[in-house]
Amino acid sequence: MHETKQRLLAAGLRLMLEHGYNGLGIQQILTETDVPKGSFYHHFASKEDFALQIVDAYVADVHALLDATLADGRRAPLDRVRNFFEQVREVYEAQGYLGCLLGALGQELAGTSEVFRRKIDGCVATLARRLAVCLEEARTRGDLPATTNTIQMAEVLVDAWEGAALRTRLARSGQPLEAVLDFCFATATAR
Amino acid sequence: MHETKQRLLAAGLRLMLEHGYNGLGIQQILTETDVPKGSFYHHFASKEDFALQIVDAYVADVHALLDATLADGRRAPLDRVRNFFEQVREVYEAQGYLGCLLGALGQELAGTSEVFRRKIDGCVATLARRLAVCLEEARTRGDLPATTNTIQMAEVLVDAWEGAALRTRLARSGQPLEAVLDFCFATATAR
Repeated sequence: MHETKQRLLAAGLRLMLEHGYNGLGIQQILTETDVPKGSFYHHFASKEDFALQIVDAYVADVHALLDATLADGRRAPLDRVRNFFEQVREVYEAQGYLGCLLGALGQELAGTSEVFRRKIDGCVATLARRLAVCLEEARTRGDLPATTNTIQMAEVLVDAWEGAALRTRLARSGQPLEAVLDFCFATATAR
Repeated sequence: MHETKQRLLAAGLRLMLEHGYNGLGIQQILTETDVPKGSFYHHFASKEDFALQIVDAYVADVHALLDATLADGRRAPLDRVRNFFEQVREVYEAQGYLGCLLGALGQELAGTSEVFRRKIDGCVATLARRLAVCLEEARTRGDLPATTNTIQMAEVLVDAWEGAALRTRLARSGQPLEAVLDFCFATATAR
């Protein structure tokens, strides 16, 4: 990828997490990255295209983290799932607890943009399906009750996590993230 | 409250839930309500003041629903808490599954506005504390394990609910709300 495009996407992710979509002007991105307007529109057709490519880059990072954490054979499957979320928590911490870009853009834009609504719902569902594979491994091993609907559990985990990510953004603290993980993991195994 | 002010707040709630804060212009509110600009600024000092008063009206409705559901002595305490969330789900359904205004504005504005960040975090924490009183009653009766930290459980319930509310906005379906309630209630009691 062109270095300028990469720089625009990285700055765009950081700024959009802070300001949201409508709260962020293209000019602010150009100023912060010292990129001329013509160059921006060489790489991106529009602000919407820019934001959708930021989402793609963000989701690619999350999938890379899923690759690394869910394949870690030294851990039991449930530990791998929890470790994935713990690693995400560390990313949030490094960003100053601004929460999740999917939640932020999804929340802001789902009411008015079918493009973002479908895109982000699809991204979240895909992440849940990957977690469900690992939960299914846990169920087969007997680490979850045999009756567990692992697809539904993965969806609930991801949704509850998104709520905790919102709260972390409100409280500027990692505590809601730990609390929701403790609750979900302690109780899912106890059923 | 003045009828015009009430009309502006009701339209503002509906429009802000759909468009968000930055995506909604004052002009759109004036057009939809047929209120002149001078009248708007007679009732509200600014767009921020307008949104904060919408939040107050929204939270007052939630507290009225808590009053009605948590005091319902015909139900066991855990049923009252679940009934509260079920009633909120019905409100969301009537609005076309646009989720929760606290989540929407909190997510959009917490990165840039300390006023909204603190305000909405405080509203969410206050709702959780009211639910915790009812959960504590459940714990005392033996409907929750004696070791349950009911404050923390209430915080997790509210945060997970907010995540499901976001997902309901993405998916335009009530299913995520039911799934998160089923998971939280089934597992909290099983510990």
